[in-house]
Amino acid sequence: MQDTVLVVGAGPAGLSAAAGISAAGQKAVLVEKEDVLGGAPILSGYAKLVPSGEWAKDAIGRMISRVEQDDSIAIHKGTKVAKLEGEAGDFTATLSNGETVKAGAVILSTGFTHFDSINKPEWGFGTYEDVLTTTQMEQMVASGKIQCPSDGRVPERVAILLCVGSRDRQIGREWCSKICCTVSANLAMEVKELSPETDVFIYYMDIRTFGLYEDKFYWKSQEEFKTKFVKARIAEVTASGDGRLLVKGEDTLVKRPIVIPFDIVVHAIGMDPNEDNPEISKVFGVGLEKHGFIERAEHYTNTCGTTRRGIYSCGSAYGPESIDDSISQGSAAAMRAIADLNAVVRKAS
Amino acid sequence: MQDTVLVVGAGPAGLSAAAGISAAGQKAVLVEKEDVLGGAPILSGYAKLVPSGEWAKDAIGRMISRVEQDDSIAIHKGTKVAKLEGEAGDFTATLSNGETVKAGAVILSTGFTHFDSINKPEWGFGTYEDVLTTTQMEQMVASGKIQCPSDGRVPERVAILLCVGSRDRQIGREWCSKICCTVSANLAMEVKELSPETDVFIYYMDIRTFGLYEDKFYWKSQEEFKTKFVKARIAEVTASGDGRLLVKGEDTLVKRPIVIPFDIVVHAIGMDPNEDNPEISKVFGVGLEKHGFIERAEHYTNTCGTTRRGIYSCGSAYGPESIDDSISQGSAAAMRAIADLNAVVRKAS
Repeated sequence: MQDTVLVVGAGPAGLSAAAGISAAGQKAVLVEKEDVLGGAPILSGYAKLVPSGEWAKDAIGRMISRVEQDDSIAIHKGTKVAKLEGEAGDFTATLSNGETVKAGAVILSTGFTHFDSINKPEWGFGTYEDVLTTTQMEQMVASGKIQCPSDGRVPERVAILLCVGSRDRQIGREWCSKICCTVSANLAMEVKELSPETDVFIYYMDIRTFGLYEDKFYWKSQEEFKTKFVKARIAEVTASGDGRLLVKGEDTLVKRPIVIPFDIVVHAIGMDPNEDNPEISKVFGVGLEKHGFIERAEHYTNTCGTTRRGIYSCGSAYGPESIDDSISQGSAAAMRAIADLNAVVRKAS
Repeated sequence: MQDTVLVVGAGPAGLSAAAGISAAGQKAVLVEKEDVLGGAPILSGYAKLVPSGEWAKDAIGRMISRVEQDDSIAIHKGTKVAKLEGEAGDFTATLSNGETVKAGAVILSTGFTHFDSINKPEWGFGTYEDVLTTTQMEQMVASGKIQCPSDGRVPERVAILLCVGSRDRQIGREWCSKICCTVSANLAMEVKELSPETDVFIYYMDIRTFGLYEDKFYWKSQEEFKTKFVKARIAEVTASGDGRLLVKGEDTLVKRPIVIPFDIVVHAIGMDPNEDNPEISKVFGVGLEKHGFIERAEHYTNTCGTTRRGIYSCGSAYGPESIDDSISQGSAAAMRAIADLNAVVRKAS
């Protein structure tokens, strides 16, 4: 039996899983398809994270350093798992770099893919320079200066449109992306802090700042940072005559059409299943649920199991997830993988 | 150094933590103040759980059996921790039954307390027999028969009022209880299934069926089970002349006052901090956040740490939490406790 654990994907969940395996005294092999570790928060240049308020590069950076400095964790960047043979307790993975890894268990911390706003063309992304995604707006916050990409002027008004690629049957995204409401309330505060003369409006269906995010983000954003939350159905984003953008739709609380000029429009983009999931499903022999996320086998005595024995998953591979819960689930998957390997050892002895 | 881990509280998070510690090869002592294990889902008699649809007694029952059959886990029921001395790696706990436990680490899986609807008197609980809480309604579902407590008649109309003890500054509950929207959408389906002639209405501020709960619960409840969701502000629940209940308020979408007769009114009660938290904070020397939940020290490299070294927490002790995430966090806390103990051993060797 092999007691090494193969971890696929080095975002928050995978970094947590690898660190956990090592901390419990076993060896991990961490395989990441990109050339850098850290997953979406690093690759997409997130600004300050929800809910800690720490910069992504610091918070996730600590997780990366911990893993990179750990002799019990072998890291392969720019690498995929091309083939997996064997069974629980004795897998052999062939990597895209030609190496093979023997492992007793596999953890798929393969994450999600950001919704591509091009698939929602009526909302102006790709057509107008001043229509951005939340990740682009976070990069602007991280740069320290809020300005319109088209001409560098300070925006008077910024609109954040929620549920872009979420809760939308027309484009095959029935799920809610869980964290965009809170991320957007936070982003509005960051914009106001950097650019006090800018007013931020958030257009929503339901505000889903669940749990302790409610007063920490939703109330604070309204009360201390004057963010305006408007319940609305947005129909389209077009250009006005004077170089600004027009957001058109219906205010669903007052039941009136709205046509409002903005300088920047931000798409709060949702979380799609990882675009590689069909390939991942095939290589690892695990099932996908109906939307295309990895299927969870059981909820109570094995929260991290996939449909295949010896293969576990965690974080946003299972569906839209927060960074904090992804990290906890990464630890939980590590715990479970080790527990199952220990059980095999105990049975054999 | 002690390598036993003391787990306080045997709900989903604590059961998960204790099982994890044992599975990783170490000993756990599980202390539960009630005379039965299982926490809220068992003590309050939950019906089918979100999102698995399994009966609470089966799903959580499996977790209980696993722990009870494990020789590496010592269980003390009807017992509290009265005193804790020492420090990380070498704690001594004195239990209320007089025994002492030596432990290297402590996990506080001490959960929450259901909001007491008596604190929202204008909504009729305690005054009218047919005003119930979600937990009472779940017990009715578990009994297999939907009927008015007052006279046993089959209800024509059931109203579920969301945010009872949540998102309510007037009564000092600013937080959202995270899971009530989904639990209520699920409950509406269970009622309809048992009693097809009953119509269920859900009164809400925002529907927070986040992530994959969106179509699985919110859409399904509306489309397949004809649950009516009404965005409203509820003012009061009173009696009508004919023995029914009147729900009065304002429909905030059509901006009109509503006065609607119901046979049963259900309070979707929120999650308060555990009422014992002031005592827990004192005995264990851990901080509480501003609402009274246990304070989290760090989010990234130690998601389960409290403000005191060697003491960890998980699940709804940290704030409103789902059962699934509580279970993952229980595993994560176990992983972290063991990792820190291993680090001490490695340093010493």
